[in-house]
Amino acid sequence: MFIAFEGGDGVGKSTQLALLAEQLRARGDDVVVTREPGDSRIGPQVRALVLDGDDLDPRAEALLFAADRADHVASVVRPALRRGAVVLVDRYVDSSVAYQGVGRGLGVDEVATISEFATAGLQPDLTVLLDIDEPTRRARVERQGHADRIEREPGELHEQVRRAFLARAAAAPERYLVVDAGRAEDVVAAEIAAAVDKVRS
Amino acid sequence: MFIAFEGGDGVGKSTQLALLAEQLRARGDDVVVTREPGDSRIGPQVRALVLDGDDLDPRAEALLFAADRADHVASVVRPALRRGAVVLVDRYVDSSVAYQGVGRGLGVDEVATISEFATAGLQPDLTVLLDIDEPTRRARVERQGHADRIEREPGELHEQVRRAFLARAAAAPERYLVVDAGRAEDVVAAEIAAAVDKVRS
Repeated sequence: MFIAFEGGDGVGKSTQLALLAEQLRARGDDVVVTREPGDSRIGPQVRALVLDGDDLDPRAEALLFAADRADHVASVVRPALRRGAVVLVDRYVDSSVAYQGVGRGLGVDEVATISEFATAGLQPDLTVLLDIDEPTRRARVERQGHADRIEREPGELHEQVRRAFLARAAAAPERYLVVDAGRAEDVVAAEIAAAVDKVRS
Repeated sequence: MFIAFEGGDGVGKSTQLALLAEQLRARGDDVVVTREPGDSRIGPQVRALVLDGDDLDPRAEALLFAADRADHVASVVRPALRRGAVVLVDRYVDSSVAYQGVGRGLGVDEVATISEFATAGLQPDLTVLLDIDEPTRRARVERQGHADRIEREPGELHEQVRRAFLARAAAAPERYLVVDAGRAEDVVAAEIAAAVDKVRS
């Protein structure tokens, strides 16, 4: 089973992913937790190129993320799925569509096409979209003291990104769980666990 | 004016590109000579990742080349064209289509789509395809003592690559010069110079 966690920075993806991993492992599942970009073999170099390159062409950036994804799917995700593991990925195709396709204006269809090429069509069985209103999300990020290049973008970009995530979910509701992530961690975790159980059965 | 030189390894691209550059400079042209992959800002890292990664996923490889191309077009080719320079590029979109699309079986249309995304549609005014039969090409490469990862591939791959280049040229003959590169250097150079003059006028 392949589950992606999506949503803006600060919505709680890593926390919820860790809680689900813990729960699945307690049941005896082989669980692989991984993230994009970065957990591929070429990931560290790709991440450095993207995060350090302040004036990197947006198309080059999108293609570097896609290269990282291709390597990640081929060398981490598919081998784990083949041996029967549950794979939980922190960001996948929707992040590219939202940040590069919409946020950077490269086009939803164009970026989706590139991602499909990168993954050779591998789709998550379930995508958990953690959704939260923009002022709350921003306040969380600031409280956490994180602010990388992308986070220094204006609030309008994040509103667009949020709408892009929601549009992806609305286009294929049978493969998505959209969660109101503004609630308590354990409430959110319970909702995710229930959805995972449903996909499994 | 934007001119691409295409063809397999050992067909004489660098030599002919240098001869044309010399001739254009002698006339007072501002000439920029550049190559893909590698002459972008991210090129050295991309080149290292591709050439060192013996078991790199072919889709990741194609996307890294495309990222390099996007950066190259945005930071080198377009600025030079804007100031009125003649840009001569050693390998461009057709190399990706031939090597990744056909040679590695990723699909001609798929790789062409990714390249069009990378270049934002920038096409050469003229593509010079240096064509040579496979046994002659291979003998040249061996004489030169070069053999990188790609060159160690079997001869069949190179036949496919050659046919892919020729198919691209046949599909848009008004933008191509297909040269029999098995002849003397000065004969080939004169044919290229005549074609460039024709495109200019």
